[in-house]
Order: sequence, then structure tokens, then C-alpha cells
Amino acid sequence: MIQLYDDERIDLLIADESMRIIQSPTAFAFSLDAVLLAHFASVPKKRGTILDLCTGNGVIPLLLSRKTKGRITGVEIQERIFHMAERNIELNGLSDSLDVLHGDLKEMKPILGHSSFDVVTCNPPYFPTKSVNEYNHNEYLTIARHEVYCTLEDVVKACKLHVKPGGKVAMVHRPGRLVDLVTLFRSYRLEPKRLQLVYPRVGKEANMLLIEGIRDGKSDMKILPPLYIYNEDGTYTKEAEEIFHG
Amino acid sequence: MIQLYDDERIDLLIADESMRIIQSPTAFAFSLDAVLLAHFASVPKKRGTILDLCTGNGVIPLLLSRKTKGRITGVEIQERIFHMAERNIELNGLSDSLDVLHGDLKEMKPILGHSSFDVVTCNPPYFPTKSVNEYNHNEYLTIARHEVYCTLEDVVKACKLHVKPGGKVAMVHRPGRLVDLVTLFRSYRLEPKRLQLVYPRVGKEANMLLIEGIRDGKSDMKILPPLYIYNEDGTYTKEAEEIFHG
Repeated sequence: MIQLYDDERIDLLIADESMRIIQSPTAFAFSLDAVLLAHFASVPKKRGTILDLCTGNGVIPLLLSRKTKGRITGVEIQERIFHMAERNIELNGLSDSLDVLHGDLKEMKPILGHSSFDVVTCNPPYFPTKSVNEYNHNEYLTIARHEVYCTLEDVVKACKLHVKPGGKVAMVHRPGRLVDLVTLFRSYRLEPKRLQLVYPRVGKEANMLLIEGIRDGKSDMKILPPLYIYNEDGTYTKEAEEIFHG
Repeated sequence: MIQLYDDERIDLLIADESMRIIQSPTAFAFSLDAVLLAHFASVPKKRGTILDLCTGNGVIPLLLSRKTKGRITGVEIQERIFHMAERNIELNGLSDSLDVLHGDLKEMKPILGHSSFDVVTCNPPYFPTKSVNEYNHNEYLTIARHEVYCTLEDVVKACKLHVKPGGKVAMVHRPGRLVDLVTLFRSYRLEPKRLQLVYPRVGKEANMLLIEGIRDGKSDMKILPPLYIYNEDGTYTKEAEEIFHG
């Protein structure tokens, strides 16, 4: 029996009911972004090690466990949300292949070493911190969404530190930060190799991007077909439905 | 009466027959890329100055003259092709607003000054020069397609030199060079602001990109809806048709 606290609830993670996830509207609830990143990231099928930074309630490790038999480690800085991730691993009976660490991604070297993961994934906070006034009044959500504890550069630097040479780093972010992402990836020798733009519907600007770099890779970017989320009538597109159904 | 040389011929530039262009299959023939760049580039409607580097036979200035009453200057390094551009301006009766210079884009400062254009456009050579063996056997085409006389960095540097602060630089290139483009744009303080990916058809990877930066602009990239060129049946899409018809 898994304990729930405060306003936590158990939701379906995948539409086929094979996976459940503890969420909280005031602390952490996963977004479409995490689901798309888990779908986009290339992971080795049979073995290998995967690190998920800013893991939140563990949504990305849970989803990736369906694509790989490798070992997946999440890192989360917020203690309450780290405990949600721990319980989510237990709830889904995945303690043999998944674990989660409570810690700051900038300080994981003593625990995780360096250059030791085949793949690093991250759905980082999107918004640069400006004045405290602009924060969400809810501290949990502010930390998840704003660069309070880590900047984008901190995140890219940690990805570079922990991924093996030749290993892959996959991230989801907003189009407004594409230039920052690409220049940071390259300056940390994570050469961007695959990019996919996500559009809410036909005729609109992209509102999300998925990017994958290879540590010490050669310069050569592929831009995948665009991904549309909604049809004109507001229903999910066939490709979005397929992703959500795992 | 315009003189034609060698294998030159006069083609329709726009499907409505309002514009014609001298081309040569062995020296210079415009491509879809130039047409898409002329369509994508933001230009002031009524006045202003526009510079087109690597202008070839003047295809981009000719097309831009339909969008602006501003003054447009082209620069072309190959003398034979420069003369084609001169005759194309005459052929279309545009000598009052268009002119073309024969010169090297790296050395135009004495003639063009610096920071003097509202907009700079460029459809540069796409391929890095490697061994001489990889060149096209035709020297004209090799120079137009390979970085023989200018690298991508030379091009971006010239754009920065000639555009006004707050002015726009628009370029077309291949997706494989997106990272190079974005990092060079930013390092020359041409902040990338608009990006559009061009896909040959639904379900394929992008094969062209259009990018616009603003000199000294603030970081904020918009990614426009994708542009598809062909329908499943091999005919042009409606949006491509509209661009080709001017």
C-alpha cells in the first residue's frame, strides 16, 4: 500500500492503464513535455545506464522503462517531490531497474562520478529567473519551472559531466531558447544531432522543441518531421495519440 | 535587345510571366532556395536599402523588387555571372532601383561602408570545401556551391558589417549547418529571431532552413509553421504554388 499525502492522487500515466503515477496539482504533475521527451530520447534497448536530471515525480524514468531494460537513475532537488518519485517506482514495481537520488544536479559528481551514463535526459526549468515577483506563488512549482536552483548552463554542464564520450543527451525546451541550447550544447561539446519541433496544430508556431546531442559528436544536424498535437477540431492527432498510448 | 552568350537562355522567373531571367545551365541557374529566401525575408515596403550577397544572376534582388520600393544592391564575385545579373536588371527594366557590384563580399567595406543596409540577404555556398576532387568539374557551379571564395563565417561577418544596428539578416541553408549558423549569428551579434524549416513532403526530414537574425537583437526565437513543397502525388502544395506565383 502506497501512502498519499496532502492533495496527492494517483493518475494513469499511460492510457492502456499499465502504469500509474502519484501526482499533486500543488507540488508536481507531469506535462506533455515529459511524455514527448521520453518518446523522443534514443535509449539502448537491452542494457546501459540512463540518468534523468530534474526528474520530478519520476515520470521520465517510468516512461523510459518501457523502452529499455537498462538501469535508470533520476535526480531531484526538491525533497517532497523526490519522495513522490520514490513511491512511484515502488507503485509500479520497478525498484529493480529504477532509482532516484535526492540532490542538486550541480553536485552529483561525488555520487555519480563522471562520464558514466550512456544517455542523459532532462526536462529542465524553462524560465530564466528574473525578479522574485515573477515567480509562481507556489514554491514547488516555481522551482520546477524557473531557473531558481539551476540555470540552463548548469543543466548542460551536468549533462556533459555525466554522459560518456559518444553518449547521448536529450532535452525538451521552448523554441525561444533554441539559440541558447544549441550554443551551450556545442560549447560543452555535446554536438546537436537531432531536432524535432512540436506544433500545437497546423499553421501555428512551434511551442516546444526536442533536441539530442552526442558528446564529442561531429557536426551534422537532422531535423525530423514536425510533430502536431491537435487536429483542427481540438482532438489529438493520430501521432500524438500513439505517443500517449505508449 | 539583351545579348545572350553561350548556352544562356531566358526563363520565366515568376509563373505570371511578369518577370524573366537570363540563366545558364553551365554557369548559373536559380534554385527553389533563392525563391524561398526572397519570400521569407522581411523587407521594408516603401523605402530602405537592401544588400544581397552571393547574388548570382540577381534572382533574389529581382524577386525582392516585387515586395519593396527600396533600393537593392547585389554583390557577385564571378564576373561572368555578375554580367548576367546586370543584364537581368536591364531585361526587367529595374535599373532605377536595382544595381549589382562585381566584387568579393569580404572586401566591400571601401565601397559599401559599414552598418548602412536595413536588410542583408544571402543564399551562400552550402558545402564546406574539402579536397579539390570533391568539387564539381564546372568551376562556375563549384564556386556557387562550395565555400571556395568564402566560408560561412566570412558570409556572416560580411552581413554583420553591412547591416545597420536593428537591421535584419536573412539566409537560406541546409539543416546540417543549423548549429554553425546559429552559433555564428550569435557570435557576430546577429541574434536569430525567426526560423522556418522546409520539408520536401509530409513525413520526411527537413532539407532546407530559412533563418532571420536582428543585429544586436534580444534573445527570442520564433519557429514558424513548417513549409512543405510537394504533396504525396508529387504536385506542388498550395503554399509552395503561392510562393512560386509571387
